[in-house]
Amino acid sequence: MSTLMMSGLKVLDLTNNIAGPVCAAMLGDHGAEVIHIEKPVYGDDCRSFPPIIDGTSTTHMFVNRNKRSVVLDLKDKNAVSALLEHAKDCDVFIESCRPGVMARLGLDYDTISRLNPRVIYCSISAYGQNGPYAGKAGYDIIAQGFSGMMYYSGEKDGEPTKCGTAVGDFVGAVNAFGSIAAALYYRQLSGIGQHIDVSLARGLLWMTGCFDHLYTGVHRTRTGSHDASLCPYGIFRNGRGGSVVIGAVNVLLWKKLCLAMGRQELMDDPRFVTNDQRVKNSAEVIKIIEDWLGSLGSIEEAVKLLDEYGVPNTNVNSMEDILQDPHVKAVGWLKGIPVPPSVSTIESRLTPVGIAGFSETDIRTCCAPDLGEDTAAFLEAAGMRPDTVDSCLEKWGVPKGSD
Amino acid sequence: MSTLMMSGLKVLDLTNNIAGPVCAAMLGDHGAEVIHIEKPVYGDDCRSFPPIIDGTSTTHMFVNRNKRSVVLDLKDKNAVSALLEHAKDCDVFIESCRPGVMARLGLDYDTISRLNPRVIYCSISAYGQNGPYAGKAGYDIIAQGFSGMMYYSGEKDGEPTKCGTAVGDFVGAVNAFGSIAAALYYRQLSGIGQHIDVSLARGLLWMTGCFDHLYTGVHRTRTGSHDASLCPYGIFRNGRGGSVVIGAVNVLLWKKLCLAMGRQELMDDPRFVTNDQRVKNSAEVIKIIEDWLGSLGSIEEAVKLLDEYGVPNTNVNSMEDILQDPHVKAVGWLKGIPVPPSVSTIESRLTPVGIAGFSETDIRTCCAPDLGEDTAAFLEAAGMRPDTVDSCLEKWGVPKGSD
Repeated sequence: MSTLMMSGLKVLDLTNNIAGPVCAAMLGDHGAEVIHIEKPVYGDDCRSFPPIIDGTSTTHMFVNRNKRSVVLDLKDKNAVSALLEHAKDCDVFIESCRPGVMARLGLDYDTISRLNPRVIYCSISAYGQNGPYAGKAGYDIIAQGFSGMMYYSGEKDGEPTKCGTAVGDFVGAVNAFGSIAAALYYRQLSGIGQHIDVSLARGLLWMTGCFDHLYTGVHRTRTGSHDASLCPYGIFRNGRGGSVVIGAVNVLLWKKLCLAMGRQELMDDPRFVTNDQRVKNSAEVIKIIEDWLGSLGSIEEAVKLLDEYGVPNTNVNSMEDILQDPHVKAVGWLKGIPVPPSVSTIESRLTPVGIAGFSETDIRTCCAPDLGEDTAAFLEAAGMRPDTVDSCLEKWGVPKGSD
Repeated sequence: MSTLMMSGLKVLDLTNNIAGPVCAAMLGDHGAEVIHIEKPVYGDDCRSFPPIIDGTSTTHMFVNRNKRSVVLDLKDKNAVSALLEHAKDCDVFIESCRPGVMARLGLDYDTISRLNPRVIYCSISAYGQNGPYAGKAGYDIIAQGFSGMMYYSGEKDGEPTKCGTAVGDFVGAVNAFGSIAAALYYRQLSGIGQHIDVSLARGLLWMTGCFDHLYTGVHRTRTGSHDASLCPYGIFRNGRGGSVVIGAVNVLLWKKLCLAMGRQELMDDPRFVTNDQRVKNSAEVIKIIEDWLGSLGSIEEAVKLLDEYGVPNTNVNSMEDILQDPHVKAVGWLKGIPVPPSVSTIESRLTPVGIAGFSETDIRTCCAPDLGEDTAAFLEAAGMRPDTVDSCLEKWGVPKGSD
């Protein structure tokens, strides 16, 4: 099997930081030719994100895998006309500038779609292309705060808490990927391209937003390590620093949990029979489970019993735990991405690649490019004269002989 | 504009709970005909999730919008053969059973793809279809614990913290949607269907996994309200219960923040010029910002100044805040989904619909179906004789005259 779903697609990637570049990398994973347009001298901001190994950022190795790198100074008319030339036959055009910037550069959807009506043009921003906040800059953490995700995370009597993952960026990336894929499908049927408006804030609001208080009068709150409406469903501790996540919310799983704990008498206890009753008596349920954990020699002993009886559970894994995990080792969710030749102290950069497994198509992992290494070829392919190519490379500070 | 990207697609949705049904609802949003296969008597577990209004779950109204409902007892051969008949001309088949169950029912990918080689068959599970944990059940919270997301959320000296959103389920849903869309595109080109293996745990690991400690020796930790490698980037408090999220990590934004605070002298202070230096001196940076917030009359005053100078910031919004937000009101990210006729006390169920905006295609929002209301039509369309239809409806407890 070495079939790539998106081979033959040409993607112009004018994005920066995390959300946009990750989306473009995903298209590259599936075989698209992704041409990353970077600004002179520094390139994608990711190239300076720590940690740096032998002069190269590991973040860059990750988010710019499977791409070519072209340096263009978009304030230079030569750069813009070369880009427009390539836009004529690209399939996907992705940008993550502040709304309005692409129009000022003459690279907005209206312009590109006039040259190429089949183009799928995806804009990724903090707040979307319209509305009062469209012009506001934002990052992952701004999306977390805006969407409600932060407000509802943390202890009931504590403060709102940020998620330890750049969830706003990654949800933005996967939303953009799915939207582009759907638009590609629709274009195959209809011949029609379109403009896709992805917002990091909208992505997290899409998963967090629940306005049932309008109908019930009951307002959500933070509920710490446990769920507001499911029980038992949370992180349970043994009082000695050990913890395990348990979810056992239907009738059968509660019975299995009672058996695992050796507490058969609780199976039909009227306080605990249904999820609703357990939610009402959640303090007691949590105490019963945590007392049981405390009575055992170790969390491993608890996990063994929970697994034996089929109660959903997991360790609260750190990255070190994940590397040791027998399931992760067996299923191939982690891949080593080749590193640039200048990085001599490591062989590859290990990372999770692929949001799903596909039976008939593959994922590739090619090394992230050096800054600007494909610039000359890009300009020549746009029909630029060799002497103009040379002078552009010099003006934009692109290393000679880099391609 | 009333064009739907996925109209004409037939989707058999054999999923339950949140992740699978939300993915299928997204396909329905874009126009696919989604036939939700539910178990007799109770149907999708969502139908009993609180809050219940006039006998109907608001969760069900949300996750089963844009679908038909067909009740089948899959232990009954009549049900399986009717389903196989429909599988012959479906485009997408989605299931979220424990791996192995579909094979026992004779409804696994091998069987369905033999009848229909173009089928895109998507399996959604906790740990994926292969590997030592494939048989383990899991929920959103299990994926959070497994993936590392939980371990890295929370205070440095505190405990791992769960995310206040069912992020594992929603990321699973959007990963499945994007994977199905990509496979639909590829099928248009190649005629080839395939089996997609979506895991809730893999989805969150995909966004959380970072193994740079292997190369640097530096292990990640929880870092509470602030980022480990970006500064200022976190939640800042005024000491009187008010807080605001600020992200200002490049040179220009730090200068703008200094101006907003009226602290021009800090712009060129060697302790704070670069992000690296600010990360090293983060305790001082946080104190400077929080002292400034404390010196102002209110958080609103701070937000006004931050906006004036273009420093990315946001309120830590609750759902009540979001409903009042002028941007949310203007951009149409929230839609009212029509409610079933039996729900008489509310007009529609307000929810965020759509992971992105599309310029040429629309999103629809149709009411979630009553349990089993399309069963008879489904059985008849599969070629079942009227008397067998009647006896099946009776055996499976489907209300008469429900369609």
